[in-house]
Amino acid sequence: MLTVVGMGPGSFNNMTPAAHQAIENAEVIVAYQYYLQFFEEIIEGKEVISTGMTGEIERCRQAVNVALQGKEVALVSSGDSGIYAMAGLVFEILAAETLELEVKVIPGITASIAGAALLGAPLMNDFCHISLSDLMTPWEMIEKRLHAAAQGDFVICLYNPRSKGRPKHLAKALDIIREYKGGDIVVGIVKDIDREGEQAIITSIDTLDEELVDMTTTVIVGNKYTKVYGDYMYTPRGYDL
Amino acid sequence: MLTVVGMGPGSFNNMTPAAHQAIENAEVIVAYQYYLQFFEEIIEGKEVISTGMTGEIERCRQAVNVALQGKEVALVSSGDSGIYAMAGLVFEILAAETLELEVKVIPGITASIAGAALLGAPLMNDFCHISLSDLMTPWEMIEKRLHAAAQGDFVICLYNPRSKGRPKHLAKALDIIREYKGGDIVVGIVKDIDREGEQAIITSIDTLDEELVDMTTTVIVGNKYTKVYGDYMYTPRGYDL
Repeated sequence: MLTVVGMGPGSFNNMTPAAHQAIENAEVIVAYQYYLQFFEEIIEGKEVISTGMTGEIERCRQAVNVALQGKEVALVSSGDSGIYAMAGLVFEILAAETLELEVKVIPGITASIAGAALLGAPLMNDFCHISLSDLMTPWEMIEKRLHAAAQGDFVICLYNPRSKGRPKHLAKALDIIREYKGGDIVVGIVKDIDREGEQAIITSIDTLDEELVDMTTTVIVGNKYTKVYGDYMYTPRGYDL
Repeated sequence: MLTVVGMGPGSFNNMTPAAHQAIENAEVIVAYQYYLQFFEEIIEGKEVISTGMTGEIERCRQAVNVALQGKEVALVSSGDSGIYAMAGLVFEILAAETLELEVKVIPGITASIAGAALLGAPLMNDFCHISLSDLMTPWEMIEKRLHAAAQGDFVICLYNPRSKGRPKHLAKALDIIREYKGGDIVVGIVKDIDREGEQAIITSIDTLDEELVDMTTTVIVGNKYTKVYGDYMYTPRGYDL
């Protein structure tokens, strides 16, 4: 069996018992090598298959192949394994090659949820997730979704907001959102969640310092009603107080 | 201090160590009475304040008041405490009454993420959450968001999809989505996640049996590329296999 495990943002503290158990029960662990440090204690003595950053397809294929040989395999993702992560790729590979394999997906806390908790409560009303990486989605489609999300006044969680290879994506996205919501909309920035250097910053579209944003950052743009109180950002749900 | 705790979908298995710890460390627990059964062992001997289903505002106010008296209070929500739940209401109350209180939000696994894991991997591309409850959001706004989300071909997670008081909301929502995506779009239905009677059903807009859907159900409508393979529903991410 292949278990795809979401380990949460990056510490044991936010990894569920189900995820922990799945890693402990596996005979073979497949993971991006950087993540191994987060569960060193429970994988001692197990077979470990790890590759670097861009090896997702290779890691998934190896996990599938070893599981097809009858071994208990845990394929580990950070965050939730089904949100822009490894679980879907496993099904894509199985379908493309008409392979039969029992797959179990263990959910995990994704960056938007962990980030929202650090900021206050920005996700109290309808919200969406958009990845600004155009490695696999054409930029035109990303722009179309930004327009739709801003028009519907969703709270918008931006994943992969900015990288060295895509330094202008965040600015372009915020320009589109500004057209509909205005520049004083509250924006929360969360960096290195659950890791050293964890940081939550509350700002607005107009005052945001882009240099703060890199690939380990999640950006949450509020809706028109999102407010700041003290150190917290929150979106009212509509209660009549 | 007031800690707002997301306990996940409904079993210890999906409650994080951070959530568990926050409940254990509190002197006073405030929770909807039905949820107390899920953490009975760790609240023995603690002061418990609980109210029925519609008592959210009252529960939050009580939690705030007791915390202002200097006690360590854990206010417990199911799922994630910041997604259509209690954390935002706490900040609304603090802001409305200009109260100063240290608040910590502990994230939890929300129904869409736990439900997606049971279905396969439907959330692998851009997605949104829309609550179909018009108790606090006008139905016109909900319809506007449904149009926007369908137009942007987001995967759409519907919360509060149908209840006795709102039997037609799901059908109305699916009619709007059908206009843009067609009736053969894959739909996943998850019921009673992590509880007795847990069920995951894969169907389509046209073949969905509305009677299966009630307030304990989350409905996930795929995007145009969402596929079914075996018992699983998944949305391709765009990998070139």
